Amino acid sequence: MTQTIAVLPGDGIGPEIIAQAVRVLDVFKQRGLDVDYQFAPLGGAAYDEYGAPYPEFTQNICRKADAVLLGAVGGPQYDNIERALRPERGLLAIRKDLNLFANLRPAILYPELANASTLKPEVVAGLNILIVRELTGDIYFAEPRGIGQLADGTREGVNTMRYHESEIRRIGHIAFQAAQKRNKKLCSVDKANVLETTELWKQIMIEISADYPEVELSHMYVDNAAMQLVKAPKQFDVMVTGNIFGDILSDEASMLTGSIGMLPSASLNETGKGMYEPSHGSAPDIAGQDKANPLATILSAAMMLRYSFNQDAFADEIEQAVQTVLKQGLRTADIYEEGCTLVGCTAMGDAVVAAL
Amino acid sequence: MTQTIAVLPGDGIGPEIIAQAVRVLDVFKQRGLDVDYQFAPLGGAAYDEYGAPYPEFTQNICRKADAVLLGAVGGPQYDNIERALRPERGLLAIRKDLNLFANLRPAILYPELANASTLKPEVVAGLNILIVRELTGDIYFAEPRGIGQLADGTREGVNTMRYHESEIRRIGHIAFQAAQKRNKKLCSVDKANVLETTELWKQIMIEISADYPEVELSHMYVDNAAMQLVKAPKQFDVMVTGNIFGDILSDEASMLTGSIGMLPSASLNETGKGMYEPSHGSAPDIAGQDKANPLATILSAAMMLRYSFNQDAFADEIEQAVQTVLKQGLRTADIYEEGCTLVGCTAMGDAVVAAL
Ligand SMILES: CC(C)[C@H](C(=O)O)[C@@H](O)C(=O)O
Ligand SMILES: CC(C)[C@H](C(=O)O)[C@@H](O)C(=O)O
Repeated sequence: MTQTIAVLPGDGIGPEIIAQAVRVLDVFKQRGLDVDYQFAPLGGAAYDEYGAPYPEFTQNICRKADAVLLGAVGGPQYDNIERALRPERGLLAIRKDLNLFANLRPAILYPELANASTLKPEVVAGLNILIVRELTGDIYFAEPRGIGQLADGTREGVNTMRYHESEIRRIGHIAFQAAQKRNKKLCSVDKANVLETTELWKQIMIEISADYPEVELSHMYVDNAAMQLVKAPKQFDVMVTGNIFGDILSDEASMLTGSIGMLPSASLNETGKGMYEPSHGSAPDIAGQDKANPLATILSAAMMLRYSFNQDAFADEIEQAVQTVLKQGLRTADIYEEGCTLVGCTAMGDAVVAAL
Repeated sequence: MTQTIAVLPGDGIGPEIIAQAVRVLDVFKQRGLDVDYQFAPLGGAAYDEYGAPYPEFTQNICRKADAVLLGAVGGPQYDNIERALRPERGLLAIRKDLNLFANLRPAILYPELANASTLKPEVVAGLNILIVRELTGDIYFAEPRGIGQLADGTREGVNTMRYHESEIRRIGHIAFQAAQKRNKKLCSVDKANVLETTELWKQIMIEISADYPEVELSHMYVDNAAMQLVKAPKQFDVMVTGNIFGDILSDEASMLTGSIGMLPSASLNETGKGMYEPSHGSAPDIAGQDKANPLATILSAAMMLRYSFNQDAFADEIEQAVQTVLKQGLRTADIYEEGCTLVGCTAMGDAVVAAL
């Protein structure tokens, strides 16, 4: 039965990088991968067309699809529109709507790009961390929230951090299972010395660790984790944490590699349906100039084949093709260094397709 | 009139590093600085003696004192006592009790210690960031909070992020004033695209920026700030943010220097009364072995002379003496590198006193 991929190019460089990822997927369609694409706008592009960042049109397509491939959303032209209509609200809305509670963000340093890191080579060589971030709970979504006026006319801002044990448990299982397939080390990040919500988080992680005796569970405060990522990032295998801490730490971890243009991500629901997108943003400054790096999006397509379509062999092939083009010395501007060949977005896509 | 310094050695290496800082202060007492010390326990030491981490005895001394000098609190022997009695509750309680809402944490890379950083020299050489963290509000203190049981017997954790505009305004003024005395650049860190509390934060910062036309105000999302600190930390002069984001980012920034054993901090109230402490922890693993680095505590004493006693000249002298001992090649274990002279905590204190 043909499976459907909802393709959401989004804003900025989104359409360009998505175009290259689709070309890569097309190679596998020719080899028998039975998928169809359905294109829909998200974020600013959706606001422009439908007046909302996650309009019904897009909802219908994404809900029916077997997987979602997303470019990136956001741009300065949307900065001053009403909060509820801004591009990132579309992103938050689709995560919640599709129940994509498990965000997997690898931070991998490709040997060919070792120089791109601002950290010393001995500190980051071989870096391969997987951050598992809870994506549909926490202070991102809980009520009460808002800016309110007090009796004396002054203002106060309120947000609520909240986790139910079932939310913690399901992301915990995902993280333990990921650790099981990797180096069997899981670090759960909390602020249990201050925040009761994360004390519960820690307790639940300890509870479910009984199901995974081979995995070594450790705990770290979020402030210390932010330090340790700088001091000795290779101590980590898999890290699991809540939505807001995960937002911060996964970006920090990505940047350790110096090449966020290379990092894919997956956001999964209970049944393995997922949304796949590069870890980087929509880079409005270089949009439409054929300068963007499509590799993170291409690698996101590989993650899609692995997690949503169980096509590990195809995913491996894509990952190897990316390694090949790096070895050939091809570089987009964001990862360029002397002695390499500077290429644009399309040419990079050409090279990956050729390597397949 | 004699002024009083409440001296709280705390736990772990606390007593050792405090002893050296007090010796340094004694030098200035001999030169006419009119201060008296009052010693009191905080954290685990206070729990051991009085059954509480911030007992009345300590409260009385600290409330009356003109400034507080703190070593560090915490240790594994207190991990399993009741939450409300743990050492870090003492720290949170004293901050709140003395209304120490403004936490100033410099992240400075000493040229002599440039190698200690895990970042490449060109990325961090000359690094000098001041993080201004709000310390008595936010999700640290607001209600409701706790782990509750729902009707079906399952558990849920809740914490509340809350800022009143007056809390934001007063820390904003501190940050703008600090920027005014430095390179006139202030970056306010928020997550205004998701959290209304921090949207209010951003609005207030913009409002009060009118009072400081010479200071260039910018805004950055916390996830991006965590990235930019790794990518290009020297872009920052002063950063201002809320309690929880400040906890994470100030630790990350400290670690960029690779020598957190060198970094002091100040926590001030509205009148300039302050608590001064090293940015590092109580290092129970090396406690009592005369191995700890006392320089962050000595530099905290310098901050005390500057901010609470208006003794800028004395503060400068201490800072210069610290530079001198570094130039002499003296290093405690945490900052040791080949070719230098390894010294203990007391010997480092001796050297600073001698350099004065
Ligand atoms: C755009 C924003 C709402 C989003 C988030 O905070 O989750 C982004 O930072 C991310 O990490 O995907
Ligand atoms: C010990 C802990 C409560 C404290 C905090 O989170 O504020 C510490 O991390 C700090 O930064 O001083």
